[in-house]
Amino acid sequence: MRVTDYDDCWLQYDAVEDPAIRSSYRTRCTHVFASTEGPELGVARDELRTGLGGLLGRDPHLWMHPPRSVDGFLAVGRRERMAVVRAAVDAEEIDALHEEGYIVRSVEWEGKDCIVVTAATDKGMLYGVYHLLRRMAARRPLADVDIVEEPKTEERLVNHWDNPFRASVERGYAGTSIFDWEQLPDLRERYRDYARLLASVGINGIVLNNVNTQKPDRPGANPAVAEMEGWQLLRERNLPKVAAIASVFRRHGIRTYLSVNYAAPILAGDLDTADPLDDDVARWWAEKADEVYDHVSDFGGFLVKADSEGQPGPYDYDRNHAEGANLLGRALEPHGGRVYWRAFVYASHKDRSVQAYDTFEPLDGEFLDNVTVQIKNGPIDFQPREPISSLFGSMPETSVACELQITQEYTGQGVHACYHVPLWKETLDTDTYADGEGTPVKDLLSRREGRGLAGVGNVGEDPNWTGHYLAQSNLYGYGRLAWNPDLDAETITDEWVRQTFGNDPDVVEAVSDILHDSWPAVLDYTTGHLGLMHMMYNQDDVLENHYNPSPGEWPGYHGASEDGIGVDRSEYAEQFHSPLSERYASVEDCPDELLLFFHHLPWDHELDDGTTVVQRLYDNCFEGVEEVRSMRDRWAELDDRVDTARHRHVAERFDEQLAHAKHWRDTMVAYFYDHAGIPDAHGRVPRDD
Amino acid sequence: MRVTDYDDCWLQYDAVEDPAIRSSYRTRCTHVFASTEGPELGVARDELRTGLGGLLGRDPHLWMHPPRSVDGFLAVGRRERMAVVRAAVDAEEIDALHEEGYIVRSVEWEGKDCIVVTAATDKGMLYGVYHLLRRMAARRPLADVDIVEEPKTEERLVNHWDNPFRASVERGYAGTSIFDWEQLPDLRERYRDYARLLASVGINGIVLNNVNTQKPDRPGANPAVAEMEGWQLLRERNLPKVAAIASVFRRHGIRTYLSVNYAAPILAGDLDTADPLDDDVARWWAEKADEVYDHVSDFGGFLVKADSEGQPGPYDYDRNHAEGANLLGRALEPHGGRVYWRAFVYASHKDRSVQAYDTFEPLDGEFLDNVTVQIKNGPIDFQPREPISSLFGSMPETSVACELQITQEYTGQGVHACYHVPLWKETLDTDTYADGEGTPVKDLLSRREGRGLAGVGNVGEDPNWTGHYLAQSNLYGYGRLAWNPDLDAETITDEWVRQTFGNDPDVVEAVSDILHDSWPAVLDYTTGHLGLMHMMYNQDDVLENHYNPSPGEWPGYHGASEDGIGVDRSEYAEQFHSPLSERYASVEDCPDELLLFFHHLPWDHELDDGTTVVQRLYDNCFEGVEEVRSMRDRWAELDDRVDTARHRHVAERFDEQLAHAKHWRDTMVAYFYDHAGIPDAHGRVPRDD
Repeated sequence: MRVTDYDDCWLQYDAVEDPAIRSSYRTRCTHVFASTEGPELGVARDELRTGLGGLLGRDPHLWMHPPRSVDGFLAVGRRERMAVVRAAVDAEEIDALHEEGYIVRSVEWEGKDCIVVTAATDKGMLYGVYHLLRRMAARRPLADVDIVEEPKTEERLVNHWDNPFRASVERGYAGTSIFDWEQLPDLRERYRDYARLLASVGINGIVLNNVNTQKPDRPGANPAVAEMEGWQLLRERNLPKVAAIASVFRRHGIRTYLSVNYAAPILAGDLDTADPLDDDVARWWAEKADEVYDHVSDFGGFLVKADSEGQPGPYDYDRNHAEGANLLGRALEPHGGRVYWRAFVYASHKDRSVQAYDTFEPLDGEFLDNVTVQIKNGPIDFQPREPISSLFGSMPETSVACELQITQEYTGQGVHACYHVPLWKETLDTDTYADGEGTPVKDLLSRREGRGLAGVGNVGEDPNWTGHYLAQSNLYGYGRLAWNPDLDAETITDEWVRQTFGNDPDVVEAVSDILHDSWPAVLDYTTGHLGLMHMMYNQDDVLENHYNPSPGEWPGYHGASEDGIGVDRSEYAEQFHSPLSERYASVEDCPDELLLFFHHLPWDHELDDGTTVVQRLYDNCFEGVEEVRSMRDRWAELDDRVDTARHRHVAERFDEQLAHAKHWRDTMVAYFYDHAGIPDAHGRVPRDD
Repeated sequence: MRVTDYDDCWLQYDAVEDPAIRSSYRTRCTHVFASTEGPELGVARDELRTGLGGLLGRDPHLWMHPPRSVDGFLAVGRRERMAVVRAAVDAEEIDALHEEGYIVRSVEWEGKDCIVVTAATDKGMLYGVYHLLRRMAARRPLADVDIVEEPKTEERLVNHWDNPFRASVERGYAGTSIFDWEQLPDLRERYRDYARLLASVGINGIVLNNVNTQKPDRPGANPAVAEMEGWQLLRERNLPKVAAIASVFRRHGIRTYLSVNYAAPILAGDLDTADPLDDDVARWWAEKADEVYDHVSDFGGFLVKADSEGQPGPYDYDRNHAEGANLLGRALEPHGGRVYWRAFVYASHKDRSVQAYDTFEPLDGEFLDNVTVQIKNGPIDFQPREPISSLFGSMPETSVACELQITQEYTGQGVHACYHVPLWKETLDTDTYADGEGTPVKDLLSRREGRGLAGVGNVGEDPNWTGHYLAQSNLYGYGRLAWNPDLDAETITDEWVRQTFGNDPDVVEAVSDILHDSWPAVLDYTTGHLGLMHMMYNQDDVLENHYNPSPGEWPGYHGASEDGIGVDRSEYAEQFHSPLSERYASVEDCPDELLLFFHHLPWDHELDDGTTVVQRLYDNCFEGVEEVRSMRDRWAELDDRVDTARHRHVAERFDEQLAHAKHWRDTMVAYFYDHAGIPDAHGRVPRDD
């Protein structure tokens, strides 16, 4: 067992200081009449004990009967079992409620001021409890509350790129994996606390292991540990480990999934093929699914990265992705499981942006109902900014999910502050025009089974979970957006800051400003903020991979040459519906922030405001560093308003970010200057001559 | 995995404040020379570290050799291994000692003041350590101590009505089940702490799951959790879970048992019958027992509720209960296991009180040696007061155990303070006249293998374990009474209060008075204290089940009508030995507190003191509320003598009890008045007219 003291993230539950609010809360929540049947309700009771204990400054009194001698109480349970709930909620309301929905309502019952949390399922009640606690953490009134809330998406998954092999996390920047496969089925307190974090924001599925399920062996590794590559989790001997961890997540309303290797019938079985049309292969998967469900009866399903970056897939047998995915879909179907099949497939012979569409759009309608095609937000690979994937709105007959990266692979790797919620909002709100105007990406992900969001996780063994304390906001924000993609970024930010750092208005304002300034700053100094991307160091064997600048390494992505910069991606623009396709195809209409993604333009091409492309790139790179300096200074001013440990850690990260931002700036502007040969108008760019 | 801060109950180990006592204790117990062989001795060492650390105000120094440089020490271990023990105890004393007995003796050895704890077994030594610590918690002297103690009963079990299914506890009023079957074999700290509590009072067996091993599913419940119904614990895949938890209890001297379903050969096996005379059924049970003992080599055995309240049994195959029980007895016999076969069997066609006797008495002598018939204290069902079961003293050829209810199903469900020890003492001390005068129930339970006590547990996941802090006294008192039914209630109360709340004389007196006033108060306001019972609300689907008053629901139990109240149970009275049968059958001789249990009397029937029945009922109901008020006020006065958290919690429970007692009183007196039409002499009963 490893160390167990770690941060509470947004579940801090600081004591309410305002006497009027505290008094109102204490009246309604000192006494808790809560149902006890079922693990989810046990979790809800525990969370109320912890949360109310913190917020009220004293332990709540738990009851199993409605207390008569008090001025008010909180009731959590089913309508049919509790008169106070019946007084607050009609039967029809419960009947009409989504199975994950809940009602939080104040009611006067037998002369008492009560709050009722109820739902159609235990899971809904757990969500309702978290809603109530979130509301109290923000000091919002309880006297007259009436909340009926349902999720806008059905599937809200976190994808872990955690390797059972050596407990590493691919693109993880917060230490080793929290999942201890060697010691499972023995459980860690940390699993519970992670499940609490996820449940508190409505995550309902977790993929435990990396989509890359095969990894080369490393010299010096303990052979007993090396045995545990991702694909091996499917072996029956490892299923009790999966079952144990699933038991923790289940009671928090979260189904467990595994990433599987397409060649599993060969690797984990004794077949010599994984051909999706082979009967033995189909039988193997069906039996394997039976075995998995025998251990985990509510198992979620499989996530697959096939024919991509060295992983096997149906192409190995000249079959297409629908044939590949449906093979697994058929095996899972009797158990209610689902296949998440990643659309991240590319070969090197043509521009990467067009390939997912070319591969998947022709297969629309061929996927089984229990197959979801999981599409990254953009066509490349989680760059600081990309246009949306052209597959959104192009597969009307297919269940699709949007894959977002919570972990900061290309946005500072947990050293830099970079708040991803505005980035995600941009993707989700982008209108695809698939059904004419008003068909944003988020609507394609909503309210149908098999549709939703998948976020690549960012937690690790670090005491703060996410490397950077501020990066906790990305996990929080992802969950909240997955629950309701209509939420605006500012609302999410405000919720997170208040729960994490308290309700001091100066702190709320400063931290909110820092978060909202952070992504533009990263865009400025790492890309020049005109749609360039993929300018980072890219050597797989070093830790700086995808972290340091290295614009000369992959010129094909940004097209820098003596005559200009940017890439003509008119072929990609054509994959969109009108008028999006025309907008991106036009230099005039294409938004500045995507201009060089879609167009190769001369260095001296004039932008709307008269600035040249190269000067804008210089300006933005310099501006980005100043934005970091400003964030750093803003944070420094909070030194007596945030607890010392967290304040110092974040301050030191900002010092590091500033130094690294300068390195990016200097590398980028030198590279631009080398190709453009046009000096900076303000004389800031170092010149070799 | 869940929250881990909970109360220490009676193992508080508060620091000794009196300088003379502390000095004496420190001289003898600062240094501990303790054997380290065996898990029970490891537990003993841990308990000494915790206990002495608290009591002495400093960590004890543990030695593995007799320390020479000190003035005195505590020695815990076997006579043959330690010279200091040989100096204190003769070999013959050890040879004569019961295997669970122990000796605690002061001795001067090599000029040092020593205390010796020794026994014939490691378990005995653990009990001796708890005895010593209990003595010190009560500040009793150690200078000249000589204790030789043995249990008076062989079997001292706690029965858990905990459902693996959804972690609920049937008749549990302290939150969810502490047993986390989903996550077992992963162990919780709480299991160890629960085992400590049980071992400290001498419990030596635990039945982990509810006697109702089948439970209907509930809408909204997570189906993945429903899988774990009680009967499924016998499945081989779940036996590692049983083995894990057994490993914790074993080292605390406690054997693990399971409740099993009589139809297990059908449910968990692939047979189509559970007929006890079927060879395949016998073979199935034998093989299942082999399997269980393969996982838990000291497994205790099976507890069975058969042909009762919907559970299957031998009646399904026209076999009797001896045939049913002996089937399981034969399977367990090769492994030293035991069957506890509940006598709680009734059908609806005649008065419930007579049915257990009618069913079981004719079978006396037919049960195997390793079958114990487990009889509830009274003939109905754990009512606030009942006469003893007529089976006690009627089955001389059968091993019997007395089943008591620690949990407060009908006595306020952990909201009301109700100390059960005096209730149990009444049962245990009642003379059955089975072997002429002087054959009390307790003697029928004593000193023979297979005889003893079974208590239905009252702990749950609540921080205080038992819902009400004062209800911890029932768990404590049950254990102490099971060890020695001759202990008087006052002794047990004094022990518990001192260990739980310290030795402040005012606190000891007040809490002791409250405990002893509590049962009579409950009898007064819930029954009128003339032997009525079963007047509570009885809808299974609501949390108020068996909690609220509802006297009109089951009039057959109390017989209220216009002409009088009470039930003629002369048939039941006849089942007792003389002169008990005549005493109960006679209106004149029957004790007041059981009068209406045995007799239907006119409302205006005059009692010995000239009061009428209905007036006594009125008076007692009103008096009961005043008794609660008095307990509440008495507790309130302790607000600066008991720590704030516990004081506030109990104070709030008393407020609630007072409100609920009034509700009972008002409901009952209105009901009596409605039938009797006789006004209250003091004008307190509300009248409709």
